[in-house]
Order: sequence, then C-alpha cells, then structure tokens
Amino acid sequence: MKKFMDQNFLLSTRTAEWLYHEAAEHMPIIDYHCHINPQEIAEDRSFDNISEVWLGGDHYKWRQMRAGGVPEELVTGAGDPREKFRAYASVLPRLIGNPLYHWSHLELQRVFDIYEPLSADNADEIYDRCNEVLKQFSARELMRKFDVRAICTTDDPCDDLRWHSMIAADRTMEIKVLPAFRPDKAVNIEKAGFADYIHRLSETTGREIACVDDMIATLCERIEFFSDHGCLCADHGLDYCMYAEPDEAAAQQAFQKALEGTTPSKEEADAYKTLVTIACAKKYAELDWVMQIHFGCLRDNNKPQFAALGPDTGFDAVNSRSGVENVAPLLNAFARNGGLPKMILYSLNPNDNTALVSIAGCFQGGGVGRIQHGSAWWFNDNRAGMRSQLTELANNGMLGAFVGMLTDSRSFTSYTRHEYFRRILCELIGEWVESGQYPDDRAQLTRLVEDICYNNTNSFFRFGA
Amino acid sequence: MKKFMDQNFLLSTRTAEWLYHEAAEHMPIIDYHCHINPQEIAEDRSFDNISEVWLGGDHYKWRQMRAGGVPEELVTGAGDPREKFRAYASVLPRLIGNPLYHWSHLELQRVFDIYEPLSADNADEIYDRCNEVLKQFSARELMRKFDVRAICTTDDPCDDLRWHSMIAADRTMEIKVLPAFRPDKAVNIEKAGFADYIHRLSETTGREIACVDDMIATLCERIEFFSDHGCLCADHGLDYCMYAEPDEAAAQQAFQKALEGTTPSKEEADAYKTLVTIACAKKYAELDWVMQIHFGCLRDNNKPQFAALGPDTGFDAVNSRSGVENVAPLLNAFARNGGLPKMILYSLNPNDNTALVSIAGCFQGGGVGRIQHGSAWWFNDNRAGMRSQLTELANNGMLGAFVGMLTDSRSFTSYTRHEYFRRILCELIGEWVESGQYPDDRAQLTRLVEDICYNNTNSFFRFGA
Amino acid sequence: MKKFMDQNFLLSTRTAEWLYHEAAEHMPIIDYHCHINPQEIAEDRSFDNISEVWLGGDHYKWRQMRAGGVPEELVTGAGDPREKFRAYASVLPRLIGNPLYHWSHLELQRVFDIYEPLSADNADEIYDRCNEVLKQFSARELMRKFDVRAICTTDDPCDDLRWHSMIAADRTMEIKVLPAFRPDKAVNIEKAGFADYIHRLSETTGREIACVDDMIATLCERIEFFSDHGCLCADHGLDYCMYAEPDEAAAQQAFQKALEGTTPSKEEADAYKTLVTIACAKKYAELDWVMQIHFGCLRDNNKPQFAALGPDTGFDAVNSRSGVENVAPLLNAFARNGGLPKMILYSLNPNDNTALVSIAGCFQGGGVGRIQHGSAWWFNDNRAGMRSQLTELANNGMLGAFVGMLTDSRSFTSYTRHEYFRRILCELIGEWVESGQYPDDRAQLTRLVEDICYNNTNSFFRFGA
Repeated sequence: MKKFMDQNFLLSTRTAEWLYHEAAEHMPIIDYHCHINPQEIAEDRSFDNISEVWLGGDHYKWRQMRAGGVPEELVTGAGDPREKFRAYASVLPRLIGNPLYHWSHLELQRVFDIYEPLSADNADEIYDRCNEVLKQFSARELMRKFDVRAICTTDDPCDDLRWHSMIAADRTMEIKVLPAFRPDKAVNIEKAGFADYIHRLSETTGREIACVDDMIATLCERIEFFSDHGCLCADHGLDYCMYAEPDEAAAQQAFQKALEGTTPSKEEADAYKTLVTIACAKKYAELDWVMQIHFGCLRDNNKPQFAALGPDTGFDAVNSRSGVENVAPLLNAFARNGGLPKMILYSLNPNDNTALVSIAGCFQGGGVGRIQHGSAWWFNDNRAGMRSQLTELANNGMLGAFVGMLTDSRSFTSYTRHEYFRRILCELIGEWVESGQYPDDRAQLTRLVEDICYNNTNSFFRFGA
Repeated sequence: MKKFMDQNFLLSTRTAEWLYHEAAEHMPIIDYHCHINPQEIAEDRSFDNISEVWLGGDHYKWRQMRAGGVPEELVTGAGDPREKFRAYASVLPRLIGNPLYHWSHLELQRVFDIYEPLSADNADEIYDRCNEVLKQFSARELMRKFDVRAICTTDDPCDDLRWHSMIAADRTMEIKVLPAFRPDKAVNIEKAGFADYIHRLSETTGREIACVDDMIATLCERIEFFSDHGCLCADHGLDYCMYAEPDEAAAQQAFQKALEGTTPSKEEADAYKTLVTIACAKKYAELDWVMQIHFGCLRDNNKPQFAALGPDTGFDAVNSRSGVENVAPLLNAFARNGGLPKMILYSLNPNDNTALVSIAGCFQGGGVGRIQHGSAWWFNDNRAGMRSQLTELANNGMLGAFVGMLTDSRSFTSYTRHEYFRRILCELIGEWVESGQYPDDRAQLTRLVEDICYNNTNSFFRFGA
Repeated sequence: MKKFMDQNFLLSTRTAEWLYHEAAEHMPIIDYHCHINPQEIAEDRSFDNISEVWLGGDHYKWRQMRAGGVPEELVTGAGDPREKFRAYASVLPRLIGNPLYHWSHLELQRVFDIYEPLSADNADEIYDRCNEVLKQFSARELMRKFDVRAICTTDDPCDDLRWHSMIAADRTMEIKVLPAFRPDKAVNIEKAGFADYIHRLSETTGREIACVDDMIATLCERIEFFSDHGCLCADHGLDYCMYAEPDEAAAQQAFQKALEGTTPSKEEADAYKTLVTIACAKKYAELDWVMQIHFGCLRDNNKPQFAALGPDTGFDAVNSRSGVENVAPLLNAFARNGGLPKMILYSLNPNDNTALVSIAGCFQGGGVGRIQHGSAWWFNDNRAGMRSQLTELANNGMLGAFVGMLTDSRSFTSYTRHEYFRRILCELIGEWVESGQYPDDRAQLTRLVEDICYNNTNSFFRFGA
C-alpha cells in the first residue's frame, strides 16, 4: 500500500516516479488562464486566515458544503471564519474521490507543510497552524513559492488594465502578469445587461456604438489596446457554441433589439454572435494571439439561490446542449474569412472530447499544434477527467504538442493543480512505457514531459519566459 | 490468478477484501426500488422450478437468449421449463463480460450453494439441484436469507394497496414492504390508454376528473392515501425528461384532446406533464417523500415483436434524446414553486452522468445530499457502469452521502445485486486507499461503506429500519 | 517493465499471453470491410518505396503530420518520398499514445522485420531497409504473409466489377476478393453530383431512372449483379442516421428536385433516403446479405483545404449529431416491411455505444447475433476505443457472437490491425479471467477467441472460407 499522498502520490510506476521527479516537478509554471484579480497582485495582498484563501470565492467548495448539509451562513454567509473552516473540514472525509480532497491536501502540504488528513477532529489545530504560516505569505510570495513565471488573468474589454500597468511598471515584480481579452459581455447579446454594457463600452472608448460594425471596430480597437499592454490571448465564454451562416441584417436586428431592451430571437442572437466572433478571430490571427473558446456551461440554474447570491456561487452545470456541432462550421468560417488564429477549444461536456479532438485535427497546419484541445475543464478537472482528455487527445491528436494545464482559479494556493496534472500525466505515460506501449527512452520522455508542462505553452503563446 | 468468483470476487486489494468482509457484507438490505408483486409476498409464494424464478419475467435474459439464437418458444413461449433452462445455460458461456454471467452465478452460489460455472454440460444436473433447494424457500424466506429489512414496490395510483395492507397486518412478517407511488399512467398523456386510465382513476377515487386541476387534486388525494399506507417515496418514469414553461391553457388543451382520444401535440403534452409533475413534487416535498425520476428509455422498439409479446419483454433501449437538458429547468420550477423534494435522478443514458451530477449539485442545501444521482440503472447496471456512476458522483458530488443500490427487479433471488454493488464499491475505494488517494483510516472507511450500503438510505427515506 | 512492443505487447497477464499465442495469433484473417482498390490485386501491384505504401493515401498520417507542423508539400504534395518519410518519422515520437505509433511499429516488425523505434534519427536507414524488403513483396504476397483468406472491397453500384471478375478467374489467386455494395451516391441525395450520378447509373444499367421506383428497381438489379459476382454484403455510409415516416410523395419530390439540380429540403431528403434504404434492406434480407451502416461522420470540414485537396484527405470529424435516435425506428421499418437483414451498426460517435448495443438487442432473433454492434471505427480504432466497444458489447450484448475486426484501410500492410485488435481482445479477456470474473476454462476461452477472431465472421457472412 502506498502512503497517503506522499511524494509519489499518483505515480504508480517507477517510470512515473522518475519522470515526475526528474522532468516534471522542477519545471516552472505558466498559468495561461485564471481568474485572479490583478489588483491583489499589484497591491501584493496578504491574508488574514485560511478561510479567506480557501472559502472566500471557491464555489467548488461551497457546493460540497451544501451537499454536506452545512447551512448557507457558513457557506457564503457572514459566519465566523473558524466555524466555516470547521464546517468544510467536517464534510471533507465524505468527499472521498473528489478532487477537492486532493487539492485541499496538496495545498496543506505545499503551502502549509501540513501532512495530516484534515477532518473535524483536527480542524481547529490546522486552522491555527495555517494562519500562522499565512503570515509569511503575500500574493506574490505565494506565486514565487510555486515558481510561477507568467499568468494570464481574465479581463473585460472595458477594463483600463491599470493594475496590469502598475505590475508591469513595478521593478520588484519579476513575474509576468498579462491580461487576457474576454469579450463575453459584448458577444453574449441575449444576456441581461447587454445594453448597459454597450453604453459603458462606448463611454470607455469614446466611440459611438450604433451598429454591429461599430461594435466590431470598437472591439478591434480594444484588442489593440490589450495588445499594447502585453496581451497574448483572448478567451470567449459561451453557454453553447453557436454558428449561423453570415447574415448582417439578422445580426443588426439582434443588436437593435438588444439596445432597445427587447430580447432578440435565438436566430438573430446567433447571427450577431457568429459575426462578432468571426471578426474577433480575424483580429487575433492578425496579432498572432491564441483564441480560447470555453463552451457548454449552463449557468445560474437554481433561480431562488441565484437571486439571493448572484453569479459564480455554485449554481452552474454542464450544458448537454453544448453546440459542439457548430465548432467545425465556426472554425471553417474563420478559415474562409482568412483569419483562423491559434486556438484552444474547451467543452464543459466531456462527451464532446472525441468530436472536439477530431474537429481540431481538420484545421491543423501552418505550425505545430495550432488548434489545441484544452485541458479538462471545471467539472472534468479531476483525475478521471484529465486521464480521459489526455487519452482522447493522444488517440486522435498529438499529445507531444499539447499546451497542458491551467488553474482557471481565483486562488493563489491553487497552483498545486499544476502538480496534480503533472502527476497524472506522468502516471499515464509511465503506464504506457512500463507496459511496452512506448519506448523507455529517457531523453525522449523527458522532452515530451517538459514540453507539455511548460515549453509548449511558452512558445505557443509567445510568453518569452 | 484469482479463483472464479470466490469469496474475494472483485476485491482486487487487501483493503477491498477487508472493507467488504468487515463493513459491507454484513449490512442488511433496503431495496428502495423494485418491481416485485406484493401479492407474492402477501401469499408467500413458493416456486416450482428455477426456470420460473430465473426466466419467468426476466427480459435481460430473454434478450440474450434471442441473441444466442434460442427460438422464442424457449424464451417467452410455452416451452418446457427444463428445456428453457438448458437453452439459457447453453448461451451463458458466450455472455463473457455480461452482468448476467455474474448475477446468475452469484444467485447459484448464495441461494443454491452451487459453485460450478453453468453451461450446457451441467445444465440438467444443476436444474435438478436448484429445484431441490427451491423447495425450502418461499418468497419471504428468500428475503430473510438476504437480510432484507425493507423494500419499496412500484404501484399505480389506482392500486388499492390491499396486499400491502395485508402484509402490514401480518404479524409473522417482520420485513417492511412499502408501496411506492408511480403515477406514470396519469402523467404520460401521450401514451395509448390515457383516457381509459383516467376513467379508472375516477372510478377508484369517486372523483370527477374533468380538467387538469381535478387531475392534480385526485393525485394529491392518492398520494395522501399512499402515505397513510406507509409510502415514503414516488417514482416518475419518463421516456425523456420534459420541461415546458408553465402554461395551464396548453396543459388543459392536452388533457381535453387526450380524454377525447386524439393525440395532443408534443408541446401540449409537455405542458401537461410539466404542470402535473410540479404539482406532485410539491406534495411530495410537503410529506418529506423522496421523489425519484427515471428518464431516458426508448420503449417497445421492435413493433412486430412488441405486438406479439407486449411491454417489458425485451424491446426497450437507451434513449439518446433523454431530455437531460430539461432537468435543471424542471428542478428550478420545483424550487420556485416552493416544493423541491428530496430527489433521486436516474438517466438511462450514461452520457448524462456528468451533467446530471453537476445539475444535482446546483440544488443541494437544507440537509445532507438532498438531490441524489441514482445508482447505475438497467443497461448501466454492470461493473463498468457502476464504476462510472460512482466515479462521476465522487468527482462532482459527495460519494459519502450516496444512497447506493437498488435491484429494480421482479425476482426474489436478485438481492445478490446488492452484493455485486458492494463488492464494486469496495473494489473502487480499495484502489483509492491502496494507491494513496485516501487515508487508510479504517474507522472512517467503515463508516463510509456502511453509510453507502445501508445507513444513508435508511435515514434519507426515513425507513426507521 | 515490459519491453517495447515485444511478442507479448499488450498481453498484460499470463492468460492473455497464452490466449493470444495459442488461440488468436494463428487464426487466418477475413477482412470484411476495406477500401483496397481491387485493380491493385488483379495486377498484383508492387511498390517502389515505403512512402508510397505508408503515405500514399493515409489521411490518418496526413493529419498528424499537419499537427506536427510538416508543410503540405511533404504531406500530400509533390515532395520527395524520402523527405516525406523523414517528416513522418520526425513527428512520430510526439505521437505517444496514438494508434499510429503502434500501427507503424507493428508494420515495421511484421512486414519489414525492423524492431527499433522509428524517429528522425534513424529515418534514413530505415527508409532504405524498408525499400529493400519491399522488393520481395507484391500486393498478393503481402496478403499471403498475413494469411488473409477473404476480403470485401467497397464498390459503387456503377462498378462493372471487372477487376473482381479477373481475380476470380485467376487460378493463381487463392484469396477471395469480393465486392461489397456501397450505394452512397444513390442514397445521399443531398450531396453535390447526385444528378450526374443518376445519369451514370442509368447509362451503366441501360435503365431509365425517372422516379424513386425506378431508382429502387435499378438498385435491386445491381444488387443481383453484385450477388452474381459473389458479393455477400452491403455498406451504407451516412453522415447521420436518418429516419422519416414512409412518404412516397416527399421522396419523389426530393428526387425531382435533385435531378433538376436544386437541393431538396432536409425532410424531403430524409424521406427519399429512408425509402430507398428500406427497399435495399429488404433486398439484402432476401439474399441473406449482411447490411452494414456506418453513420456519424462530418465530412470535408475545412473548406479551403477541401477545395484544394478533395475528399478523404484528412478533413473529416466525428458528427455529434449522428442520428442514433433514428436507428431504432429505421430497423423497425425494416422489420415491419418484412425485410430486416443481418446487420452491423457502426457509429463514429463513441457516445452512441451503449444506445446502439441496446437498440441492436431489441432486434435480435432468428439466428445467432443477427444485429451486430460494429468494431470501433476510425477515430475510435485505438486501444481505448476498442476496449470501450468490447466492454459495452459485453455488458449489454453477447461478446461471444461478435464478428470482430476489419481494417477499413487502403493499405496492404495494415492487416496488423487485426493483430492489434486480437491483442486487445486477449488483454481484456485475460483481465477478466485472472481477476476471477470468468472461469479459467481453456477450451471455452479458446473457442470464444477463435470465434471472435475468425469463425463468427466466416459463418455470419457465409464466406465459406
């Protein structure tokens, strides 16, 4: 029996152990998609207690606390931080098999030097020890501890990127903190608040936005602005991947309706979204950016709870109508329009994996691995999900060209997810090698793992790290 | 090499062996969803031969006999029981990897004390030995042999529950045999026979049912009637999970058409079904019942065969249009209506697992594990399917709060499926523990396994067993 | 650690080793579905170099070369054969986990007696050694080397089958090379070129084809013609499985429109396709043919590349709208029409596996395994995909009646895929036996494996090999 989460956690073969400790473990981290607030880095935030770090914004944990019968007061409410930590610790043992179990203990180990399993029994003691350790760490110190070299945050086109500018100008900060362009509010025309957003975007830019062409021109200008601030990638979040044959009249119709506060039809909305997305893609291609598309999320499902607590509080789910059937036509429209950028495609629906890898394969060319199947996302970001994504990618794509892991997180302790991914990657490759499915060629294996952990990302995005 | 199905069948690690034999094996059984005919318990039926028990109503076996080339005469026909048994035994060796292979041998071992692999070679001898053993067992004795403490049958709202009353009044019967409310015929308005059924329900209750409101009031009355007979749960069987925005006029239109014998449109039917289901849910919530929804079955596909043999004879399949996209809106409608009961959600389409667990997670709160992802059902009720359901549940839900297994069976020997599930559960947990993914904490592991095998079900349904 | 792809490649248990080497390895091959050009057999083609064999028509390799950044000149272009081979060898190490890695090395081992891992380092040397070996081998010699007993090519109804006749008449050729009837161009009415095709079919047969009935009569005549040339099976390739309630008027409307060069509506096209497919099925049933349906492929996705390179050059993908929901109604229509032939159903979408096996199970009867779930196809033709197909089939069908593997290939060296399949089959069965899930009964296991590798196919298709 292996010990609980020791140094060889998940490394089920000698080859896996060797690969992880010799090749993967010491590679730096580039976290090319996260939701960290750049202000916290600019101001080098420090933390009062572990509950703030762990439970402050983590809807993964909130969902499981609710499932464990914890009252909302101790989930998102005004409850005492120690009691919140106790509540989380008390549900944790029932989360056997859940990635939270592993993430929590990896963070306890790597950041806090705590190696015991957390439960109600030792919650108070561990709470105190964590808080003691936290005194040494600011946001930047946490990033340095994990050898982070660069991150991309997630930023609205209206953002003035002041915090990014401040960090860039700060000579004491050696880690790259780059913005990523996330125009969801400008694209997802069917969502509430679109008209208000357009007014805000108009004010931000000093441009009139009276029609779809204005919208596209404005977005292109903001893309340039982001580029001037070092941005190397964009990210589009879609409930479902849409596609409509280009139809400017319908797009314009959608835009007028939305500005006037009426809801466009699905067909009109799709026409608008398709048109704007194609235009953005062309601009990204021109700047050699990476375009990410995250699709397949059904948001805010529990309306009474959503009304009480707002977005990103644990009421999202996998969209079984992810629109994966539209990915090929959409990429084809990019290609025909002369603007197919480098891409990373993520579906929240794991059923899409094979289709998505096969679609990506239709649009390769002009460089190494230009169309990537993104790492297992959110509800799939667990051992089974990552093994499945890696296996599907290997089966129908080129695993050696993969750009690997990202945290998608709001937390400075969650860089352990890169460790988790790397262990799982080495576990899988170790199985292949030890069962004779791939040669035991250590130089080649080292290259593969180092590339997937770091080098591919660095060159694909052009981080120059 | 492990011996064929010995005491450590499926227990691939020491931890699994220990967990199964120390924690799982001796837990009693609550079978909270089955299709046993309560009359057979009330009258304490005995059996003439093993073919009656095994082949009398088991469409799983019938399908495989047909696939093996057995003529219908020996499947559902009037063939000799011994010849039917021979025919089944002769196809069994080709069913390598099929759960029938394991179920059949588990039943031979546990009920009949027979440990040889069954095949054409020993069919006659085993037939005789089984029949000899069967003489000792009545329905109740079989239930006692498996330490069954409570079961829920599946009962129509029109049922007078006389057999349940008789069993409840029988002081020689210590096992709880409770009805479960299954209003499919009142809900699935698009099916043939709806109008006749409404007349029958009207006669049963002495109430006029002239509109949707009457229908709902009548169902609520029957729910009370079932509750008075000890019922703790309901079960809704849907070809696909429907949802329509509440629309009383459309629902009423559907009802009128169906009563007059014309077929309502899909939209009208969905409106009716949604409305009635929401109303039922509210009533269940009021009574603190558990509401089960089974969806995603495509029934009666082979029309010529269905015409000859009727329903439940082996012509059903997985519905790839299961309507899982409607589950979140439906539960949301329950919640907005102030009536979200405890629930167990089952889809027959295994592709729905991740989505379903993620949707359940949006509606947790107010108690432990109130929205459950149901155990692997029917075409998924096999080792791969159960491992997949358990893994998905663990990945995105709280496995420790799971209510676990049910037989869904018509047979008194099929309680071995609880053993099968428990072995697979212990196998999976054993793998996690021995690979260092969960602490080797025997007290905690014992609690987890005992809870999933029995305690969670007992408290979730309030069996008081 | 096992050695890289040695004689026990993928054979993870003693039972697997024994089963493969004693039962599977020496069985002959029947390749019942491939895309080999019969002219190459009739003329007993020889090959100039390994690039011609490996890279001449293999879009699997082309896709991965593009993903690896190889310029199109060296993919499908006029590049030097040696440089093309070098380019493929240089991307191969990054294809860890990809079936191409295994296929390529299996072919190097079995055909060329080369056991080193191929990479940029040894590409030139291996290129020369392969070309030396190739001098000994013609098309027929390669088939003999793999002990191929019969193959079915893929042939258009317009084909005059002259090459098949020539081969059949050639007394020096002992391997059966049979045509398979593939009426896609006559069925898929929505595709470009339909009208031209109908004219060609009309000229070929000397029959007027002015309406759907003419079309059906003509196809039936061609089926007879194929039958006279030894054909035993048909294959229908569909982007999605369609079904429409029989509607001759709509079908006729589709036909008129298509002949006139206008595009029928989807409803009309489905009506036509359904009607013609039902009629073909009845004819196949009459002749006791096997009808294969391959569905769920999204073709020619990258329009700029497709325009440059044409079909089958690497721009196809999994269709997530595969139409699996129509399979049951379609088979039911065959059955009601009195013409349900023996069938093999393949979906390119792996999500369809459980549904498809469950649907097949509804239509069994009248013989052993008459409705088959086809072997893992194309994007699923890898170790994970094959294990998944075999497991799903075992879970809900009768694995012992399975007709097993086919290459679906254009190449004479790809018979190693039968070896790959057989190793994976033995690996899986070995796991079951050694973990006590199936008896260690060597006679029975041998029979199962020999049946799945060869005997079932031989009798199902009536090859008489």
